[in-house]
Amino acid sequence: MLMHHKAADQIPDIADIISAQQRINGEIRTTPVLTDPQLNTELGCELWLKCENLQYTGAFKFRGASNAVALLDENGITGDVATHSSGNHGAALALAASTRNRRAWVVMPDNSVRTKVAAVRHNGGEIVFCAPTQSAREKGLASLVAKGCIPIPPYDHAHIICGQGTAVVEMSGQIPGLDIIITPVGGGGLISGSAIAARALISDVEVIGAEPEGAADTALSLSQGKRVDQFPVDTMADGLRAIVGVLNFEIIRDNVDRVITVSEVGITEAMALVWQRFRMLIEPSSATVVAAILASPESFSGRRVGAIISGGNVDLENLPFKT
Amino acid sequence: MLMHHKAADQIPDIADIISAQQRINGEIRTTPVLTDPQLNTELGCELWLKCENLQYTGAFKFRGASNAVALLDENGITGDVATHSSGNHGAALALAASTRNRRAWVVMPDNSVRTKVAAVRHNGGEIVFCAPTQSAREKGLASLVAKGCIPIPPYDHAHIICGQGTAVVEMSGQIPGLDIIITPVGGGGLISGSAIAARALISDVEVIGAEPEGAADTALSLSQGKRVDQFPVDTMADGLRAIVGVLNFEIIRDNVDRVITVSEVGITEAMALVWQRFRMLIEPSSATVVAAILASPESFSGRRVGAIISGGNVDLENLPFKT
Repeated sequence: MLMHHKAADQIPDIADIISAQQRINGEIRTTPVLTDPQLNTELGCELWLKCENLQYTGAFKFRGASNAVALLDENGITGDVATHSSGNHGAALALAASTRNRRAWVVMPDNSVRTKVAAVRHNGGEIVFCAPTQSAREKGLASLVAKGCIPIPPYDHAHIICGQGTAVVEMSGQIPGLDIIITPVGGGGLISGSAIAARALISDVEVIGAEPEGAADTALSLSQGKRVDQFPVDTMADGLRAIVGVLNFEIIRDNVDRVITVSEVGITEAMALVWQRFRMLIEPSSATVVAAILASPESFSGRRVGAIISGGNVDLENLPFKT
Repeated sequence: MLMHHKAADQIPDIADIISAQQRINGEIRTTPVLTDPQLNTELGCELWLKCENLQYTGAFKFRGASNAVALLDENGITGDVATHSSGNHGAALALAASTRNRRAWVVMPDNSVRTKVAAVRHNGGEIVFCAPTQSAREKGLASLVAKGCIPIPPYDHAHIICGQGTAVVEMSGQIPGLDIIITPVGGGGLISGSAIAARALISDVEVIGAEPEGAADTALSLSQGKRVDQFPVDTMADGLRAIVGVLNFEIIRDNVDRVITVSEVGITEAMALVWQRFRMLIEPSSATVVAAILASPESFSGRRVGAIISGGNVDLENLPFKT
């Protein structure tokens, strides 16, 4: 089968995402979607959770990593793969690589959540720790590439973006008539793939991002009309601490209606709410989408909302809320 | 539509369970089923989790409660409902009742898990606390019935059994070719409904129960050929501390192949495993089914196993395992 795919630095289109869906379909989990009538009444909208916290490796990241590694195979490119990641992309790449008999090297900040470190190791990845800064992460990766590894960056890469977009391809089939798609915004891999898929597959859809105030570089970039590459990051949402990618920002600027910023208290309350009502522990990054609805209910009122719950890799010993 | 149902003290058949499925279909959540290829390789069997931890109220109990309350409506019986419960049946009855504009009274042992108490209240139920013994629970319920409440017992009741059996009706459609159905055994509501449904719908299926050593009254009853009504209960699996019901034991004796008992350490390890591999926190009662597979791998080797994960109502502040 001939499949579409763009070069890694080109903006993908829906054909690339549909190809990704066909390519990784047998490898990823079709994750469930859940709604709760009682909660919907309270929120004033029809909220559907797309449970990527139940994806293999506990996060949507496995979609992008699977697509990127599968494309290496498809293009006859051999060798170890490498990346930098606060954890979820690292675990995802480790599993995607080991599934296809490759070794994966993961540069991780030394303040990474313990369960995420364990997950990379569990999936057969090799870890290289670094300081918790963007530059240290990039330097660590550069040195692995210098040794011959193939870099698979976590978000600023067309193949990753296409893989992440498959979550919306699935969701649009699972829930008819969505009015809004909302996803967390970190490096921008999930929201950029989601936005391209949503625009193509769901008529009159609104695409909204949710970003912690303490990592609101994308909201700032949008307001300034250009990508900022520095931001004083301070949030518990460890999956969203990265600066938005170059390719990702271009796609977001052209396809995302707006980004809602949420507070740390809001994130904590949303985590607790999802636990109470759905009995799912989701990571702080995921909780941003629910926090955005709680913070701006008027933006969602009466609408059918598809919210991507990005991951469930929580450190059980350090939960930010009490029951 | 004319629907089948037996009197509360009669053994139901598959027609009663199919009727229950049609009756409650719009009220319950069709829960997802999950499998993990990597874990399957390690276990040596194909394990599918039927995620009743993601059912409304966080447990399969909502199925039985919905069926019982819906049947009151169908039969024109008005009034408050009442039950005794360590928590999950109570929360389920509270929601099933409030959905149909009834009040529910729940007798709860005073050592009930805090989140379960909160859940009963959240769903609009009124709580009456009692000592943590079977006789205190029954006495508390009797006094509510004396005041005019309709008793909806947690398991020893045909309508409850039929509701619980709908989990297997769903699962048999979601996963073709199941070789084994395994469920936890407490009062016996879930396993008895499951066994009737499995025998009728899945050819050559084996039905296995999982019971904590510290609440192994059903295993003891089976070995003695008659229902024991006393057992020194000591297990963290708070949902399985009840003595098997009369109707339930009859059904189990005739339809369940065997009951595997599991240790407290085994339950803890199984909880941790499900968290690590599926990112789902399940309650100790649910973990018994996975503990049984870990304890007796030869009984499951090479088979396709449908395991009902009965609930997810965990006290986050008192998890028995460390990550």
